[in-house]
Amino acid sequence: MSLTPEYIAQRYEILQDEICAGLEALDGKARFQEDKWERHGGGGGRTRVITQGNLLEKGGVNFSAVHGILAHSMTQHLQLPPNSHFFATGVSIVLHPHSPQMPIMHMNVRHFAIDGETWWFGGGIDLTPHYVRPDDARFFHQTVKNVCDQHQSDYYTRFKKWADDYFYIKHRQETRGIGGIFFDRLQGDKQALLDYTIAIGQNFVPIYAHYAQKYRDMPHTEAEKTWQLIRRGRYVEFNLVYDAGTKFGLETDGRIESILMSLPTQANWFYDFKTQPNSPEAETLSYLRKDIDWLKA
Amino acid sequence: MSLTPEYIAQRYEILQDEICAGLEALDGKARFQEDKWERHGGGGGRTRVITQGNLLEKGGVNFSAVHGILAHSMTQHLQLPPNSHFFATGVSIVLHPHSPQMPIMHMNVRHFAIDGETWWFGGGIDLTPHYVRPDDARFFHQTVKNVCDQHQSDYYTRFKKWADDYFYIKHRQETRGIGGIFFDRLQGDKQALLDYTIAIGQNFVPIYAHYAQKYRDMPHTEAEKTWQLIRRGRYVEFNLVYDAGTKFGLETDGRIESILMSLPTQANWFYDFKTQPNSPEAETLSYLRKDIDWLKA
Repeated sequence: MSLTPEYIAQRYEILQDEICAGLEALDGKARFQEDKWERHGGGGGRTRVITQGNLLEKGGVNFSAVHGILAHSMTQHLQLPPNSHFFATGVSIVLHPHSPQMPIMHMNVRHFAIDGETWWFGGGIDLTPHYVRPDDARFFHQTVKNVCDQHQSDYYTRFKKWADDYFYIKHRQETRGIGGIFFDRLQGDKQALLDYTIAIGQNFVPIYAHYAQKYRDMPHTEAEKTWQLIRRGRYVEFNLVYDAGTKFGLETDGRIESILMSLPTQANWFYDFKTQPNSPEAETLSYLRKDIDWLKA
Repeated sequence: MSLTPEYIAQRYEILQDEICAGLEALDGKARFQEDKWERHGGGGGRTRVITQGNLLEKGGVNFSAVHGILAHSMTQHLQLPPNSHFFATGVSIVLHPHSPQMPIMHMNVRHFAIDGETWWFGGGIDLTPHYVRPDDARFFHQTVKNVCDQHQSDYYTRFKKWADDYFYIKHRQETRGIGGIFFDRLQGDKQALLDYTIAIGQNFVPIYAHYAQKYRDMPHTEAEKTWQLIRRGRYVEFNLVYDAGTKFGLETDGRIESILMSLPTQANWFYDFKTQPNSPEAETLSYLRKDIDWLKA
C-alpha cells in the first residue's frame, strides 16, 4: 500500500484510539470526551480530553489531519514557494496528573507533506516530573533510547540533545523537565520513519503506566501540591512563550481549545518563590538543565 | 530645573512611593515587600509586591531606572543606530484582587531617552473587570478622559483606540478587559508630558478606591470565583503571548520576578468552558470587544 498522507493520517488516528483506550484503562475512572472539528480551509480533527479522573486531572489527546493552501506566514517560515498545498497530520498529548508525585508527560508525532512531493516527519516525547528523581529519569531515557535504537543508532543521541535545546525556558535558564527526544524535518525511508513515530506513540502509555504503578498511591503534602502548581506555572510559561506548535496554532487561527488543552487546570505564580536548601524542590531545580546524561544518572 | 532623565526617574520614584502608600491604606492589612535590584549593564529598580491583603491577593508596583548600551535586538526593534546609549525609567503596576467583584487593574508610565537627545514618553492604564458592568466601565473611562482632557483634547480618543488595539487577545478575538488608554513614543513639551504621565499615575489609587468602596464587602459565589480564575487565565495568555513589555523583558534578560509579578497567584484553564446563556459571564464576554464607547454605555 502506498504511504499517502491519508494513509499516515489513518495510522495516527488508530494510534490516538489506542492511546486513549490505554489511558482510560490506566485511569480507571474518567473517560475521554471527544470533540470532532473541521478546519475552514480543509480537514479537521478529533480533540479528546479527559478530566477529573482517578489519576489524571486533565489530559488531552489530539488527532488532526488538515490540508489546504499554506498561509503566507507559513510558507515564509518553512521557506517554501507561495501557495504551496500542504497536508499535515499528527497526534499530540499532554497529561497533567492530580498528584505531584506523578510527572507531566507530553508526546507529539506528525507528518507534513507539501504538494504531494516534499514530506517529513517530526515529533518528540518528553517528561516533566514535578519532583525529578534520577531513577525515574533514567527509566524514561532508557525506554526512549530503546525505541530509538530499534530504528537508527544515532537517533537517541541526536534527538536527546535537540530536546534539551527545545524544551528550554530561556528566561528562567531552566529546562522544562528532564527532556527526552525532539526531532523535525526527518526524511528518508518513509515506512521506517512512520514506524518510528508509531513506536514512540505506542510507548507512551506503558511509560506512564510505570510511573502510575509506582506513585499512584503515594500520599503527598500540601507543600508538595504547592510545588506542583508552581511547576505547572513554568509549564504554562514554556507553552505560551516558546512552544512552536502553540505559537503556530495561535498565529494561524487554529482551534484554540485544542491548542491550549495542554495548559493545566490550575497553575500558580508566587513572587520570588525560593526553595529550601537541600530540599527535594531544590534538588529538582538542580536537575533542570541541559546535557545531563540520564542513562548514567 | 532641567528635565533630565535622572530627574524624571526621581519623579517616578516618588510616584511609586505615593501609589504604594495609597494602596496599603486602601488594603488596610498587607504591606509591600521591597526588593531593590541592580542591572548588570547599569541602573536598577525597586520591585514592590503586596500579597495576602484584605483586598489584594497579589499586587506589584515596579519602579526602574536603567541605562547602558542598547542591545542589538533593541536598536533594530526601535530603528536606532547601533551602540546607542539609553536611559529608561518607569513605574508599572498590576493588581489582582481576592474578590471576583473587584477588577484587575494595570498602569504603566515610562520615559525613554537615547544618547541624551531623542526621548519619548509611553504608558497606559487599563481595567480588566472579572464582571464587566457598564456603569463601572463608564466611571473608568470618564475618569481617564478627564485626566487626558486636562492635557490635550485629542489624547483620550487617540489613546483609547490604541488601548483597544493593544490589549487584545488575538487568538481569542477578545479584548483583555474594557481597555482604557495606551500610548507610546509621545514627544512634544517634555514638562507637559511628564505631568501627564504623573497625573495618570496619581489617578490610579483613587480609581481603585472607587471600586473597593463599592465592592469590597460584596459576597461572591464559588461559581463567580471560578469565573475569576478563568479570566485570570486569559490575563496570563495576554501577558505571556502578546504584552510588549513582558516580551521585551524576557528577551533582554530583565529581572524575571519583576517582569512576571504581573501574573496572578492562581489561574485556571478548563477545556472548552462555556458560559450559560444570559448569565453575567456571557454578558461580560459580550463586552470584551473593541470600539465600545463606554462614555455612552
